Amino acid sequence: MATIDGRSLSELRRDLHQYPEAGWREFRTTALVAEALEERGYELSIGSDAVDPEERLGVPEADEIQRARERAIDAGAPEEYVERMGTVTGLVAEKTFGDGEPVVGVRVDMDALEITESGDADHRPQRDGFASRHPGEMHACGHDGHTSIGVGVARRLDSDSDFTGTVKLFFQPAEEGGRGGLSMSETDHLADIDHILGIHLGLGNGTGKIIAGYDQPLPNAKLDVEFRGASAHAGQAPNEGRNALQAATAAIQNLYAIPRHEEGATRINVGSVESPNVHNVISDLARMRLEVRGGAPELSEYMLDSAERIVEHAAGMHDVEYETSLYGKTTTFEADEGIVSTVAEAARSVGSVTDVVEREPMTASEDVSYLIRRVQEEGGEGTFVCIGTDHPSGHHTPRFDIDEESIEIGVDVVVGTLEAIASD
Amino acid sequence: MATIDGRSLSELRRDLHQYPEAGWREFRTTALVAEALEERGYELSIGSDAVDPEERLGVPEADEIQRARERAIDAGAPEEYVERMGTVTGLVAEKTFGDGEPVVGVRVDMDALEITESGDADHRPQRDGFASRHPGEMHACGHDGHTSIGVGVARRLDSDSDFTGTVKLFFQPAEEGGRGGLSMSETDHLADIDHILGIHLGLGNGTGKIIAGYDQPLPNAKLDVEFRGASAHAGQAPNEGRNALQAATAAIQNLYAIPRHEEGATRINVGSVESPNVHNVISDLARMRLEVRGGAPELSEYMLDSAERIVEHAAGMHDVEYETSLYGKTTTFEADEGIVSTVAEAARSVGSVTDVVEREPMTASEDVSYLIRRVQEEGGEGTFVCIGTDHPSGHHTPRFDIDEESIEIGVDVVVGTLEAIASD
Amino acid sequence: MATIDGRSLSELRRDLHQYPEAGWREFRTTALVAEALEERGYELSIGSDAVDPEERLGVPEADEIQRARERAIDAGAPEEYVERMGTVTGLVAEKTFGDGEPVVGVRVDMDALEITESGDADHRPQRDGFASRHPGEMHACGHDGHTSIGVGVARRLDSDSDFTGTVKLFFQPAEEGGRGGLSMSETDHLADIDHILGIHLGLGNGTGKIIAGYDQPLPNAKLDVEFRGASAHAGQAPNEGRNALQAATAAIQNLYAIPRHEEGATRINVGSVESPNVHNVISDLARMRLEVRGGAPELSEYMLDSAERIVEHAAGMHDVEYETSLYGKTTTFEADEGIVSTVAEAARSVGSVTDVVEREPMTASEDVSYLIRRVQEEGGEGTFVCIGTDHPSGHHTPRFDIDEESIEIGVDVVVGTLEAIASD
Amino acid sequence: MATIDGRSLSELRRDLHQYPEAGWREFRTTALVAEALEERGYELSIGSDAVDPEERLGVPEADEIQRARERAIDAGAPEEYVERMGTVTGLVAEKTFGDGEPVVGVRVDMDALEITESGDADHRPQRDGFASRHPGEMHACGHDGHTSIGVGVARRLDSDSDFTGTVKLFFQPAEEGGRGGLSMSETDHLADIDHILGIHLGLGNGTGKIIAGYDQPLPNAKLDVEFRGASAHAGQAPNEGRNALQAATAAIQNLYAIPRHEEGATRINVGSVESPNVHNVISDLARMRLEVRGGAPELSEYMLDSAERIVEHAAGMHDVEYETSLYGKTTTFEADEGIVSTVAEAARSVGSVTDVVEREPMTASEDVSYLIRRVQEEGGEGTFVCIGTDHPSGHHTPRFDIDEESIEIGVDVVVGTLEAIASD
Repeated sequence: MATIDGRSLSELRRDLHQYPEAGWREFRTTALVAEALEERGYELSIGSDAVDPEERLGVPEADEIQRARERAIDAGAPEEYVERMGTVTGLVAEKTFGDGEPVVGVRVDMDALEITESGDADHRPQRDGFASRHPGEMHACGHDGHTSIGVGVARRLDSDSDFTGTVKLFFQPAEEGGRGGLSMSETDHLADIDHILGIHLGLGNGTGKIIAGYDQPLPNAKLDVEFRGASAHAGQAPNEGRNALQAATAAIQNLYAIPRHEEGATRINVGSVESPNVHNVISDLARMRLEVRGGAPELSEYMLDSAERIVEHAAGMHDVEYETSLYGKTTTFEADEGIVSTVAEAARSVGSVTDVVEREPMTASEDVSYLIRRVQEEGGEGTFVCIGTDHPSGHHTPRFDIDEESIEIGVDVVVGTLEAIASD
Repeated sequence: MATIDGRSLSELRRDLHQYPEAGWREFRTTALVAEALEERGYELSIGSDAVDPEERLGVPEADEIQRARERAIDAGAPEEYVERMGTVTGLVAEKTFGDGEPVVGVRVDMDALEITESGDADHRPQRDGFASRHPGEMHACGHDGHTSIGVGVARRLDSDSDFTGTVKLFFQPAEEGGRGGLSMSETDHLADIDHILGIHLGLGNGTGKIIAGYDQPLPNAKLDVEFRGASAHAGQAPNEGRNALQAATAAIQNLYAIPRHEEGATRINVGSVESPNVHNVISDLARMRLEVRGGAPELSEYMLDSAERIVEHAAGMHDVEYETSLYGKTTTFEADEGIVSTVAEAARSVGSVTDVVEREPMTASEDVSYLIRRVQEEGGEGTFVCIGTDHPSGHHTPRFDIDEESIEIGVDVVVGTLEAIASD
Repeated sequence: MATIDGRSLSELRRDLHQYPEAGWREFRTTALVAEALEERGYELSIGSDAVDPEERLGVPEADEIQRARERAIDAGAPEEYVERMGTVTGLVAEKTFGDGEPVVGVRVDMDALEITESGDADHRPQRDGFASRHPGEMHACGHDGHTSIGVGVARRLDSDSDFTGTVKLFFQPAEEGGRGGLSMSETDHLADIDHILGIHLGLGNGTGKIIAGYDQPLPNAKLDVEFRGASAHAGQAPNEGRNALQAATAAIQNLYAIPRHEEGATRINVGSVESPNVHNVISDLARMRLEVRGGAPELSEYMLDSAERIVEHAAGMHDVEYETSLYGKTTTFEADEGIVSTVAEAARSVGSVTDVVEREPMTASEDVSYLIRRVQEEGGEGTFVCIGTDHPSGHHTPRFDIDEESIEIGVDVVVGTLEAIASD
Repeated sequence: MATIDGRSLSELRRDLHQYPEAGWREFRTTALVAEALEERGYELSIGSDAVDPEERLGVPEADEIQRARERAIDAGAPEEYVERMGTVTGLVAEKTFGDGEPVVGVRVDMDALEITESGDADHRPQRDGFASRHPGEMHACGHDGHTSIGVGVARRLDSDSDFTGTVKLFFQPAEEGGRGGLSMSETDHLADIDHILGIHLGLGNGTGKIIAGYDQPLPNAKLDVEFRGASAHAGQAPNEGRNALQAATAAIQNLYAIPRHEEGATRINVGSVESPNVHNVISDLARMRLEVRGGAPELSEYMLDSAERIVEHAAGMHDVEYETSLYGKTTTFEADEGIVSTVAEAARSVGSVTDVVEREPMTASEDVSYLIRRVQEEGGEGTFVCIGTDHPSGHHTPRFDIDEESIEIGVDVVVGTLEAIASD
């Protein structure tokens, strides 16, 4: 029996909550899920069979990944599956019911945030003893719940469903920062999918509310930049330095000044700068992390292209080297009418659902956008569904928590939708 | 018998080398020296009797000072003296010989650098077992030797000298960064001094070489700046942020552009910036550390005034708050002819001295400048003396070391000078 | 008989076209119109009775105004009316028909642009001999046509109309740049108006097309900034300068970087900079002209406030003085349903009108917005009407011209609307 | 008889003062001098035989040069010589006396400044009726006197001197801004010169004072930069502009921030910026004029190289084109001991000389530096001599004037030096 079988979805969620794994480090999570689904007869694509490794963004250093692998095994991850993953996390699990048509995809994400969980005694995970055991990492966005819903869907399809067709469950790594979606969308797993739905808990909506078409997330891109110059004694040889910090400041002053765009909203932000020398040594290193957004993919690209040009010339201006790496990227999509209606109808027939909204714009960014767009480009349809959950604190905060009842609601809505699609 | 009595100066230096204490944390060093000198009949001014606490620059946080106190006691500092210091380090020790005239001052500094000592097997302190036991701190500038010379002078005057007059030994804390000199110069200890000499080992000069008048160090000032704004989600509410990083970059761009000065060299450098948010959060905090210098005190002041004005308005421009704190400051001086000649003559009569230079400009900055200027303002004379020492690596590098023979040479030159002054 | 009586509206327009007068210099235009309307029994408010002189924006220097007065008289302006104006242009002409109710306003603008008219032989005003006689000034936006329509409305009401009520004709100066509307809106002339319409020719719409509700122009503000420092020889005394150009560039870098706003579009532009010294003299003067816009008045104010703060601190940063003056400003309005329908219906009954659009957003800025908002605030209603005209070249270009047939269409639409309002 | 023969040197100077010709427009001056010297048997190299046209800096537009040619002829320049010049000004005149050895050079400059002369009644040129007849041009630096001295030397050598050898008189165009010296130094005229002296009147020294070795002028370079982007309506299509002004401001912010240099003084200044659009049009053009200096040629080159790199990348950053052109450039030299002594001795034997200084540093820049260095490189020697003259106002000011007595002193000193050299 798989390590996680026999546990309720709430218990599973609490287990995952205790061992949060940030992006590209989800070895334990992936392995536990893979083991359970393989036992259920799912065909697995795991690690670099689940994502295109070359298209991963914001990948940590190799030693950090290695530590995450070891940590996973220490925390009870089935070693065989960690071995099969190699250094790449992620899972696509496929199973056929009946004649195998239609092909339906469900995408959930697995990664945690690099946030330290609240130690407050009245924070439920603390009170009930399932708070994060990984300092500096926390499931503060509900992905532990998402993964549990994914597992719950697999269980339900086996036990209590008349669904016929093929289901593909996408357990995506590194959603935070928009680092994993692109690499998962670049595989062939999405090519033959007729209908796909992604899900997200909460986002300000309480338990019982369902949004069937959460669409038009803002495309964005996150860029990490490193300027490398040469240090020198600022008093004795100012001309011998090549000042990485001057390059960074010239860049920042001009990045915020990228012209507005006639076609819609644009955004630019430099969230962090780090240039660590002492007072009298010329900076030989400056790192910065920036994000651009746009009201449409073209606008986000316009900002990204402009940012890259500015960075290049800020470096040139101060005669320093630079390197940029895309830390994350998302696109946008419009949920399709058909599947939105199907989800809404399925939701309305779930007993604990009290409020169904057909469609709402999404003000955040989400890399499920890459998966949905790929399915749409291949002729299929897709939507992104919000499963309301009471959450006492905002997403990405140390006191975030979910109402575990929403996990079963999520399973109900997803399986209800699959069944409706199959019976069409 | 005092803890350090009975040890040779080399042994003392090696003891100090193992327990390096960075600026304003010299509790063990001060206590050991204080104990030894009090036993020799010196009258002590210790802690806030040795320096004006209000004039200290670049003082660490209270908890860091507390840890340094505890660490000192753990490492064998005589507890009574640590108690007497309170939270302030530094020592002035005075003793009268004969009729007590003239009054002569000798200044040595005691603090270590925040550098991790080399672990190389062929680095002598490693090889001979006296490397730093404090990770991140190291006597990489020779102040362990300076302190030993100060103790050596006290011993020699008691044992083998015909000096008559009053000697005041200044054991200065926090010379690195120019943080302690000002606070020591603002006490009354310097008011009645007729002749003062400060000493420094090395600075590129080998064992046997003496520079009797090392003068005209570059005045400088180190300024720590903190901009505080308000963070906001850069995508959803860019206008709600007050961007501390934009303020910092506006400042930096304009700081480097402070006009050159007709009267001589000026310098400006921003060594570090730290603004730690994530990609899509508007920066609410940016810290920077800068240094200015000038070929004369007026030029350094011109740069500092300009820098402060720019910082103020960079903050105002982006509607953020700011705070500046002076981390360190030095001035300059011109060594006096009389005492320079006396030192040179005394040096020439020391057997192991092979090369005596009367006077050289000093290209670095030194806060002994405040002590010497104060004495000069009160009608006395002063000089800063370089005691050559073979050093295998540059000052402020992890493999710095001194030739311990130079310690005795330093004592010889200082005591020789004191005797010559007394016999004039 | 008034100077311009007996001429057709096309002849009048060509006369005005030959003597274009830029903002606040419309002495000839105002005087000719005033004379003609007074002869028709209109009660005149002229000069500072037509606008609040204190609220005028972008007013030229006194000597330039004086030259414009003299030029007007030389070009045949009736001297009496120039005298009555003093140094302030602008006219409100009021006449009562029947019982005097309702009170209806019509606003036309009179000023020319500071553009030199094309000398091309095939440019119709050249070919037909009515091109601008004022080098550097040109009616390149059609205000000569607007003024003619205003005069045409007065003639028609006297000769061939059953309108009863009070009509107030607003001949506004200095619309270009948004300099005159505010000052006209701050008088009492608008307080009792029940219905107001402004008109504009062209804007890309050909002869025969009418837009009955051209609304939601973008609020904007134009700011002129002057930084004043101190010059010095850049080689010999760089520190003695106070560099106005450094202040301007620090401002510009940061102006473009004013954060975007969550509530809608914002714009910033620095159109010109002038800092006129020679290579080696530090700039003591830098002038810049900037414009801000916003999708709503609050957004334009947000940009203007931010711009003023940045300018202030850019000056402070470089220790220079500065002065800002508002060169122009507009607000926005929403055309009222009732009057829009009335205009559309009146337009449809004009024979030569071929296309009527009820409502379109206006992407440009217009200071008629101040007049319409004032009327709306006082309980009246208003709209801004586009009278299509074939124009061979874009507005504000040297080859701009209008199709004079549209002048009569304009009169038809306006008088038709007035009659419909009166008969309601 | 040449046009200027028969006039005293004072009269000649007053004639030249009335017809000032700015750099590369000295057609009348060159022609008058050429005619006079050819009549005296001098062999002329004129126009592009006097300077290398390719190496001219800061050359005006062709039509401006054409106007200057015509103006010269209108003002009585002998037409034949204007023809011989073509479009290039400048003259080298050579004559042999006795055996033709040694070869001695004398350099004077001819150009005026682009300054409007004072109209004050008490300004002597006004009072005595010889003020500039060219508005916007003025001999405000004394080059009218220098040219007169050059002519005076030729007269004296013919009439009242025992000089034997070859004399080459260099009448240099475009000294202001450092635009002509380089092009004159790149010809072969300097290759065989054994001794050269340049002269300058005044510079703060009154009549009767001579400085025999005015050396070490500061090397500098003047750079004109033009950024060319694309304009667009700032409100409607901000993204379609390519903002030349943003490029200029990014450049300026970073130009002033070029790091100081350990080896000596450096200077940077942007004297002017011009970007002429209206408020709401994105700048498609920004011109700026900058100057760099250094305490040594390497330092000036360091600044110039840095400036060019910054300009290039400021353009690239904002996606605009740019062009730079060197407007002027000077180097430095050290006057040679031998000729300095000779000049000093000759000066002491001139009756009206009251004060002789052997050597002084020159704080300004001078392109005679190129001529002197060339002679030195070819094995000859050189110096730059100051001929004191009382001047009521500073050089380059509208009320500048000279004491005409100093012209004869200048001739005395130069001819005395030539004779002494010849008799050695």
